[in-house]
Amino acid sequence: MGGFFRGRTLADIARGLRSGDESPAGLLAGALESVDPDLNAFVTLDPEGAGAAAARAGEELAAGYDRGPLHGVPVAVKDIIDVAGLPTGMGSAHFEGHVAEADALCVTMLRDAGAVIVGKTGTHEFAYGGTGDVAVNGPVRNPHDRERMSGGSSSGSGAAVAAGMVPLAIGTDTGGSVRIPAAFCGIAGFKPSYGAIPAGGVFPLAVSFDTVGVIAASAADCRIAYRALTGPAEAVPSPVDESAPHGRVAWIEPLEIDPDVERAVRALFPDAPSERIDLPGIRAVFRAVQDAEAYDVHAERVAEAPGLFQPPTLERLERAGRTPAWRYLRALRERERFAAEVAGLLDRYDILALPTLPITAPKIGETEGPLGSHVPTLVSLTCPWNVLGLPALSVPAGTVHGLPVGAQLVTRRGAESLLFDAAENLAVA
Amino acid sequence: MGGFFRGRTLADIARGLRSGDESPAGLLAGALESVDPDLNAFVTLDPEGAGAAAARAGEELAAGYDRGPLHGVPVAVKDIIDVAGLPTGMGSAHFEGHVAEADALCVTMLRDAGAVIVGKTGTHEFAYGGTGDVAVNGPVRNPHDRERMSGGSSSGSGAAVAAGMVPLAIGTDTGGSVRIPAAFCGIAGFKPSYGAIPAGGVFPLAVSFDTVGVIAASAADCRIAYRALTGPAEAVPSPVDESAPHGRVAWIEPLEIDPDVERAVRALFPDAPSERIDLPGIRAVFRAVQDAEAYDVHAERVAEAPGLFQPPTLERLERAGRTPAWRYLRALRERERFAAEVAGLLDRYDILALPTLPITAPKIGETEGPLGSHVPTLVSLTCPWNVLGLPALSVPAGTVHGLPVGAQLVTRRGAESLLFDAAENLAVA
Repeated sequence: MGGFFRGRTLADIARGLRSGDESPAGLLAGALESVDPDLNAFVTLDPEGAGAAAARAGEELAAGYDRGPLHGVPVAVKDIIDVAGLPTGMGSAHFEGHVAEADALCVTMLRDAGAVIVGKTGTHEFAYGGTGDVAVNGPVRNPHDRERMSGGSSSGSGAAVAAGMVPLAIGTDTGGSVRIPAAFCGIAGFKPSYGAIPAGGVFPLAVSFDTVGVIAASAADCRIAYRALTGPAEAVPSPVDESAPHGRVAWIEPLEIDPDVERAVRALFPDAPSERIDLPGIRAVFRAVQDAEAYDVHAERVAEAPGLFQPPTLERLERAGRTPAWRYLRALRERERFAAEVAGLLDRYDILALPTLPITAPKIGETEGPLGSHVPTLVSLTCPWNVLGLPALSVPAGTVHGLPVGAQLVTRRGAESLLFDAAENLAVA
Repeated sequence: MGGFFRGRTLADIARGLRSGDESPAGLLAGALESVDPDLNAFVTLDPEGAGAAAARAGEELAAGYDRGPLHGVPVAVKDIIDVAGLPTGMGSAHFEGHVAEADALCVTMLRDAGAVIVGKTGTHEFAYGGTGDVAVNGPVRNPHDRERMSGGSSSGSGAAVAAGMVPLAIGTDTGGSVRIPAAFCGIAGFKPSYGAIPAGGVFPLAVSFDTVGVIAASAADCRIAYRALTGPAEAVPSPVDESAPHGRVAWIEPLEIDPDVERAVRALFPDAPSERIDLPGIRAVFRAVQDAEAYDVHAERVAEAPGLFQPPTLERLERAGRTPAWRYLRALRERERFAAEVAGLLDRYDILALPTLPITAPKIGETEGPLGSHVPTLVSLTCPWNVLGLPALSVPAGTVHGLPVGAQLVTRRGAESLLFDAAENLAVA
């Protein structure tokens, strides 16, 4: 847990770079030295490419050309996102030897912001799972307890940031894949509104929900990274009346949850009234749509080379392929109904608060816990916001059973800044 | 075949009404006297409601209030379209005793045009089939050969017009359900662009394709009825450059067809160059989308009262319910590809011509013929235009084996008038 970037904020790093106390090359060296192979967070490191980028960033800063708060900062990229010249492995034997020709759009934006791409982080195979322990590269380990899963699917991004290897990592979130590893690993994970960060060059899981997101130590760092990936704050549309108070928080009751986790997170919102949403109903919509869209992506691979999948992934895909079309059609209609219901709630409240996960990180390889199969359990509190396309932020909320838990904040589309404001006001014990 | 309206055009009828040689009440009496129960075209007759409407129409005309060419004309309505106060039976035991509370929008438009609604015509159960011999009301018989099917699903509308019981009937066309009975029965059937006639109050089969259409003795009569259902001709949008010649006709090769049928229809277009479209590929798109949407409509009935369906309908629905969602997603994408391909063809030609059906009317109860199962065979040449939302007109093209065959004309969306113009120039032997 003693990686180079532990305890350093992006603001600290930016000051150090501009005061001359730090250099991009020095930060990169710190990152590379912090990589702990036992955690299995990185699947590819690019010391040469990163070295060249760090040198260039250093020259630019020395010449007074300042690209902003990510300039010279080492960043890790999930291995389903293309970085030109590096393998994009998807955590799958299907893509062994596959090298990306061009940068994904979000990677181009990171480079334009001066970030130094350190390498690629491990992903649950094809991002199709929340445990992070199913991949041709092997499981990613949780820095808080190496026998436990990091959570996924942006497993390596979560572990790399939590262990202080990098101060920032990019992931993707289709049903919780940025927020889950952030919560299990005790850091912050942010999924913006659907479509807010362009998804070009990101391998699809379920196109209706796939969202690029960021993982960093804190909400404040997520805000900095998010601005770099979307332009100035002023460019982010906000439907919010700026003259109104922005403190109205509702507690969304998690219906199936470890009571200790609920207590720990609920304590952060003592004044928030409780509200109910049909979270299991929305999860059923999530599942029907995700399964249909995921099988659409993989149908040929399932037919032609099923043996190249990890067995749990193949099993999930085969079931997903049998999702009936009429269920998908109904899920689309139900989604509209849920969207209207939650929009009504977001007329009365600015923030919906709930735990990110109903449990703490299970042991690697465990597939069931007290709440049943981990597959539905892990996304039960996160996937509703993908279904509705709403921005959601997971922030550290202390520990339970000695393991990190996350508090999740949700708001209206385009009102991302409310989440960061609310997170900064939270008093975590 | 000697019904009251045999050989009478809507124009003739309109002249007779205005000269005083005919009256709405007299036309209605002629219609009711022509009803031949053995053909089973009507499932409900409404002599009282129709009588009142005819009396009103007569008074209006006598007072000089002229609603146009359908004023006082008896019209039949397919039994999946609501007529206030009459049963809407859908050809199914599921809707026994169900009485419509309000008129469908197209029925309101007919009444506004002065039409006299005579009654409801038999439909293939839930409009889910092209043979017209599967319904709780029993099979509709072909006036040209009572042992043969009328074709469906607007089975009774086709038989009623062909037998001269009414000069006009309303049907619906999801994959060919107006054009198929028109062609099998030797009359004209017209399906406008998707959405051109409002579908409110029509029981759904597959919402992406469901289209209200008209059946009449000739293309000229279909044009008159279509204008009454969409407003003045000027209101129909037409992307066509009116200064360009409108004669460019392509022959679309039917890939699987009785060669005698092909010869008969091809002879009407001696100068048209042959073109190929992937008709089987478009039919596969049709099937995936129709099956998904149809099962969505009927899922609860299949689960709760399967025994109320006719056995072939239940069998089709159960198969439809297993259509995988990923196939549906791919079908939607393939539809875009086919739409672009056919749009390219319609840049070079004004009219695509092909047979309406690849065979002549089979015997009632027959489920397979030389081309295989009738289910895919009957829609093979009609459903592609539903998939693409294009207007299509079937007109009589003589006889083969002593049975009627139809020529089908297709054009661009909104260019419906081109079809009627082209049909009037056809020289049928």
